[in-house]
Amino acid sequence: MSSYRDLKQECYEANMALPKFGLVDLTFGNVSVFDRAEAVFAIKSSGVEYAKLTPEDIAIVDLGGKQVEGKLRPSSDTETHRRLFQVFEGIRSVVHSHSRHAVAFAQAGKAIPCFGTTHADYFRGEVPITRAMTQAEVTGRYEWETGNVIVERFRNLNPLEVSGVLVHGHGPFAWGANGMEAVENAFALEIVAEMALKTLQINPQSPPLAQYLIDKHFLRKHGDGAYYGQK
Amino acid sequence: MSSYRDLKQECYEANMALPKFGLVDLTFGNVSVFDRAEAVFAIKSSGVEYAKLTPEDIAIVDLGGKQVEGKLRPSSDTETHRRLFQVFEGIRSVVHSHSRHAVAFAQAGKAIPCFGTTHADYFRGEVPITRAMTQAEVTGRYEWETGNVIVERFRNLNPLEVSGVLVHGHGPFAWGANGMEAVENAFALEIVAEMALKTLQINPQSPPLAQYLIDKHFLRKHGDGAYYGQK
Amino acid sequence: MSSYRDLKQECYEANMALPKFGLVDLTFGNVSVFDRAEAVFAIKSSGVEYAKLTPEDIAIVDLGGKQVEGKLRPSSDTETHRRLFQVFEGIRSVVHSHSRHAVAFAQAGKAIPCFGTTHADYFRGEVPITRAMTQAEVTGRYEWETGNVIVERFRNLNPLEVSGVLVHGHGPFAWGANGMEAVENAFALEIVAEMALKTLQINPQSPPLAQYLIDKHFLRKHGDGAYYGQK
Amino acid sequence: MSSYRDLKQECYEANMALPKFGLVDLTFGNVSVFDRAEAVFAIKSSGVEYAKLTPEDIAIVDLGGKQVEGKLRPSSDTETHRRLFQVFEGIRSVVHSHSRHAVAFAQAGKAIPCFGTTHADYFRGEVPITRAMTQAEVTGRYEWETGNVIVERFRNLNPLEVSGVLVHGHGPFAWGANGMEAVENAFALEIVAEMALKTLQINPQSPPLAQYLIDKHFLRKHGDGAYYGQK
Repeated sequence: MSSYRDLKQECYEANMALPKFGLVDLTFGNVSVFDRAEAVFAIKSSGVEYAKLTPEDIAIVDLGGKQVEGKLRPSSDTETHRRLFQVFEGIRSVVHSHSRHAVAFAQAGKAIPCFGTTHADYFRGEVPITRAMTQAEVTGRYEWETGNVIVERFRNLNPLEVSGVLVHGHGPFAWGANGMEAVENAFALEIVAEMALKTLQINPQSPPLAQYLIDKHFLRKHGDGAYYGQK
Repeated sequence: MSSYRDLKQECYEANMALPKFGLVDLTFGNVSVFDRAEAVFAIKSSGVEYAKLTPEDIAIVDLGGKQVEGKLRPSSDTETHRRLFQVFEGIRSVVHSHSRHAVAFAQAGKAIPCFGTTHADYFRGEVPITRAMTQAEVTGRYEWETGNVIVERFRNLNPLEVSGVLVHGHGPFAWGANGMEAVENAFALEIVAEMALKTLQINPQSPPLAQYLIDKHFLRKHGDGAYYGQK
Repeated sequence: MSSYRDLKQECYEANMALPKFGLVDLTFGNVSVFDRAEAVFAIKSSGVEYAKLTPEDIAIVDLGGKQVEGKLRPSSDTETHRRLFQVFEGIRSVVHSHSRHAVAFAQAGKAIPCFGTTHADYFRGEVPITRAMTQAEVTGRYEWETGNVIVERFRNLNPLEVSGVLVHGHGPFAWGANGMEAVENAFALEIVAEMALKTLQINPQSPPLAQYLIDKHFLRKHGDGAYYGQK
Repeated sequence: MSSYRDLKQECYEANMALPKFGLVDLTFGNVSVFDRAEAVFAIKSSGVEYAKLTPEDIAIVDLGGKQVEGKLRPSSDTETHRRLFQVFEGIRSVVHSHSRHAVAFAQAGKAIPCFGTTHADYFRGEVPITRAMTQAEVTGRYEWETGNVIVERFRNLNPLEVSGVLVHGHGPFAWGANGMEAVENAFALEIVAEMALKTLQINPQSPPLAQYLIDKHFLRKHGDGAYYGQK
């Protein structure tokens, strides 16, 4: 029996939450879950339909990039996930989707401004966007370099306070402390993208939320002073 | 057995109507129901998933702000609801949601103009927006002050004729004579926000509806001369 | 037993199709079906929820405006339907909805241009809009005058070729040879309104379809030379 | 028993996938599947509701345009499908829909720019649009000429790399190696149209994706070097 049964199960359930939240179509999208102690992560297999996915279809890949379990080839985006687990300490799960409003911002080359408290409940400031990738990066180790442009964009950002990003011309990645939290962040990213687009349609000059209101809402839900929920 | 069983049940049912009407995602949103005679109100507990909510999870809070029943902490927005019950006579239920079009107007800093009869059937004029809250208000008793900026905005408005408001940079609050009416008003507020956005997209110079047509439609459904429905 | 059982059943089924097609929310909207030989029409009762509607709740009203059957008050829009049955020969059913894109055009004061073949399959030219109603019309016999501004708008239009209209600041009316055809036209009107809005968003200078293409598509589905379908 | 049972079944299943993917309303839309060896194709019958469609309702038409099987008249768009099977080698199935965002681009007279990797995963460059059809073409053999303007537009394009098109003022056609692949391409075409519209709403000056990134994503999924999926 697999020694990664729980990891695969958590990864499977998080992947199955993607279509439930309306974040993916067809075979798009993937979730990975990381076991830092064992230095391996579970990830969706490539191109498998969600309706047919089983926990056994989840691949296990080590932090060096070698597949250590699973009969199916892991997601073609595996190298991007691997790069993020290497660099972003404290995250345990990564989600990639092609959710429509988030993709639209990525395609327009624009970060998602923090226009309101719904956004600030999840992200402490704008959801940033990477620079466009160069031809050398794209024709080289493309998926690995995708991870690198994300890491580059976060040089002065805390991934635990801004738990998502847009890859230029591509789409969103989000992450969290576990599979379901990462999916929830990916869903929140899509919702705030939708609200931001509508906000710009009503008033193209809408200013971002005041920093003190961003901080208030983010810290109401995160960190030692949080008082939202039952914890 | 709780002496507030009916109040909790009404509050529970109104909260469960929020996801049914598509007004909330995740754990967003809350409904309260007020018993003016007993000076207590029932309100959703904080951060609980709708799929798991039971009538027993509803908290009872008195008009002084003290929780008098319920094992779970009440909504983090409780103080806003409490302030509205103190000031707005004749309302018995308050709804807070993050419905997407209403949030977009709140984020854009714009009231929802009364562009048509669908709007006038529910709100006798524009759905107003509060001023932005100051840093002192946000870092102080934030949720209480949220109630205060709503009250301030209604100095010359009748909350029984305009049964909803947008809090600047945040989202909508709506109210009514009972739980289901408050939810219906929150739903109408979201629909008219959606219609108003599309109206502006077709014609950014769309004028508001003539006052005589607003009055006609509002009074067709409300007050002594109403002739809509079977009452 | 009612001598209008079939008429009420047809009217009931057409009304129940409104929520199924996503054309109405809450208690909005109504369908009537006309028996020209008997000079009476069946119409939804006012303010009744669709989930609770039964064939027995359908009211029968004669062409003079007198309710001749039914315990419940007919729709508040009854006089508008009655006016259309009086004037528009050859129609047997009228639908009124508050479907969102059609309302947006009505609120923006704009007809729906015929931008494509989807539109031309149903309407032989733009879906027209009435003038705004005067204060005298609104404070007088409002619903009757609503019928009159529609009739006025159709002075040089054939209601059998253009089977729908927008009432300025209000919303759409559509009609047809029977209950289900009228509902289908109301649904087509909403779809083409949605497509027209998106068309304008992509290219605000989009020209209307050439008349020869409008005629081709309309006549492919309507009239003696039609060759769409199995008739 | 029909010698085209498998062909009809494949065609039936692909047609039934259209409403499942939200690509059609009412009786709009049709899918055909081609048997090149037998020089016949299966196609939906005209104007039949999807809920009532059975495999027996699928018509068989030969490459010369003669119906060789089926009691119901084939789709009114049959001649367009036939023309594409004659000219586009290597395609086995054609889909026509009136999906809303794709129609909006067709009505606006604009190709769908390739703004991102979701688009490039399916189409190697923009989804092109035909020229407007002339009066002679429309009043002549309209559906056949529709095929011809598509063929004309592809004079310098490879239909195996760009598996869809917009007919000016009308809507999308898509194709593929089998029924389900053609439907998937029609669905992808609608999604990328939706994303492209939102992209333009955020930034009307959005540039298309760099050609090296288009090639990377298209070739990641198509051709000998593909490494997406399990093949």
